[in-house]
Amino acid sequence: MEHLEPVWWDGDAVGYVDQRSLPHALERRRAASADEVIEAIATLAVRGAPAIGVFGAYGVAVAALRAADEAALAAAIEGIRRARPTAVNLAWAVDRVRARTDRDYLAEARRIHAEQREIDRLIGEAAVPLFRRGATILTHCNTGPLATGGFGTALGAIVAAHAAGKDVRVFVDETRPLLQGARLTMFELRAAGVPATLIVDGAAAIAMQRRGVDAVIVGADRIARNGDTANKIGTYGLAIVAAHHGVPFFVAAPRSTFDFSLATGEGIPIEERHPSEVRVAEDDTVYNPAFDVTPGHLVTAFITEYGIVEPPYFDSIPELETRPDFLFARA
Amino acid sequence: MEHLEPVWWDGDAVGYVDQRSLPHALERRRAASADEVIEAIATLAVRGAPAIGVFGAYGVAVAALRAADEAALAAAIEGIRRARPTAVNLAWAVDRVRARTDRDYLAEARRIHAEQREIDRLIGEAAVPLFRRGATILTHCNTGPLATGGFGTALGAIVAAHAAGKDVRVFVDETRPLLQGARLTMFELRAAGVPATLIVDGAAAIAMQRRGVDAVIVGADRIARNGDTANKIGTYGLAIVAAHHGVPFFVAAPRSTFDFSLATGEGIPIEERHPSEVRVAEDDTVYNPAFDVTPGHLVTAFITEYGIVEPPYFDSIPELETRPDFLFARA
Repeated sequence: MEHLEPVWWDGDAVGYVDQRSLPHALERRRAASADEVIEAIATLAVRGAPAIGVFGAYGVAVAALRAADEAALAAAIEGIRRARPTAVNLAWAVDRVRARTDRDYLAEARRIHAEQREIDRLIGEAAVPLFRRGATILTHCNTGPLATGGFGTALGAIVAAHAAGKDVRVFVDETRPLLQGARLTMFELRAAGVPATLIVDGAAAIAMQRRGVDAVIVGADRIARNGDTANKIGTYGLAIVAAHHGVPFFVAAPRSTFDFSLATGEGIPIEERHPSEVRVAEDDTVYNPAFDVTPGHLVTAFITEYGIVEPPYFDSIPELETRPDFLFARA
Repeated sequence: MEHLEPVWWDGDAVGYVDQRSLPHALERRRAASADEVIEAIATLAVRGAPAIGVFGAYGVAVAALRAADEAALAAAIEGIRRARPTAVNLAWAVDRVRARTDRDYLAEARRIHAEQREIDRLIGEAAVPLFRRGATILTHCNTGPLATGGFGTALGAIVAAHAAGKDVRVFVDETRPLLQGARLTMFELRAAGVPATLIVDGAAAIAMQRRGVDAVIVGADRIARNGDTANKIGTYGLAIVAAHHGVPFFVAAPRSTFDFSLATGEGIPIEERHPSEVRVAEDDTVYNPAFDVTPGHLVTAFITEYGIVEPPYFDSIPELETRPDFLFARA
């Protein structure tokens, strides 16, 4: 696959591809202050739960270069940490970097970035056996290299299955309102040579009913202990529709997306974004949640760098029983 | 409600509002030949199952004014009849007009138009008791005056409930790819003074889960004897999501939308429209069905001008047992 790096260290700033311009233009920019890092995350120039984790990690290094004093640095880091509320990866990565006692924040950010590539590779490897040869897979939003800084989670799994000769084809939900599926996933699948068909989100049900879909696979922004999964708006309805058709519903996510401080998804903050993403007339009233929460019982299995995790999710990882930080301990 | 007439007779042509320009511009046009009638239907300048029935009926009168001979007239009428395949109302109205032995096609078209207003009024009247005071109702696509030439079917029912003082509020699916909900339903609900909130189609599930939805109501393009309902793409998934949440799912449609020649929805032709409605990149492969078929068992009840029709649908109208044309006999 032609590899498009969404985030990189650029001397004394963090470089990124502005994903808002894709697929029509490939604009590379740099964030040279904490404010620019926050701006890039908040405006979705950089998006995807693992990618904003990597970007936020580099952002701490940028903040450390610019901050006038300790108080300013703490405030800047906290601002980055809160730039978007739903995905836990951002807070997780920022916390990990700032906990570095030798203050070599850049080294820690680079390590998180390198780990993400290895994690994505392991997720892909774990996923391949789940797909039969010739499978039709449906996905939502964008979970490829652009979303993770590595090879991708759900999309990485699809590309891994393709690379393994499974002859898969993909239905891609366009993913309103910001069309990450139409703009980014189609772009990345084309680059990877995987046959892909674009549909409106509302066509997922007829695709399952009349065209046949063997599996749905999506990414995640935060997963609670019971498997409740926050992901891009539309995921919850898709999971219900998949269950109705008996289609397995997989969530591919690194362990940094699991928030074991939450027993259920009720505590996951759902970001509501600006009405202008949706409205047609200036005075339209809009409800625009960027995410929804799919109940764990609708998830067939999680695909992680540790392998396949099935219900009951928490209990399937014995170490978590005694060491809730187990997943984060490998750093 | 400020009444915007979508279709009217205009001397020697059929006038219409070009719905593609709404809500930003109100463009009135006229179709003065069968080809212009067909073009207006095929390009969705005029849309909505009952409205294209009314428009097609006037179209036969236009064709009769212009046709050089009997063969040309027959071909022109057949062209209008087939301008869109899914909604049965168009074929039904054209057949009814051309069957007029005295050849006063305009009189028959005017009668169909007048009947539609009365039918919509009766649908609204039948629907009001279904909604509790303060109900939150979710709808998909556009089924208001613009879609019917009358007061609307599903949207007419909502406005009737509002007029009856039920204090309803509405979630409006934007309805990709052509945004009839965002462009037309929001416009019509604003005109009617009904509080409306626009959502992306993928947000219907979270709206039910977190905001509370008391009922879903949609229109239809064709209904088979077992209740299988063809309607705008996204309706089937919405019905599954409603069932999952225990939310009643109502279909409001005149009897002219029922196709009693079909035992099930399998025989309903599903129009696939141009990829350009959906694609982002020129070479995107797209699956773009304009409609889907919701199985009858997911429909709580149909709201018709004859009242509420519940499962088993066919059997609830005794006259149909012996007279399959009963519904169409009132003309």
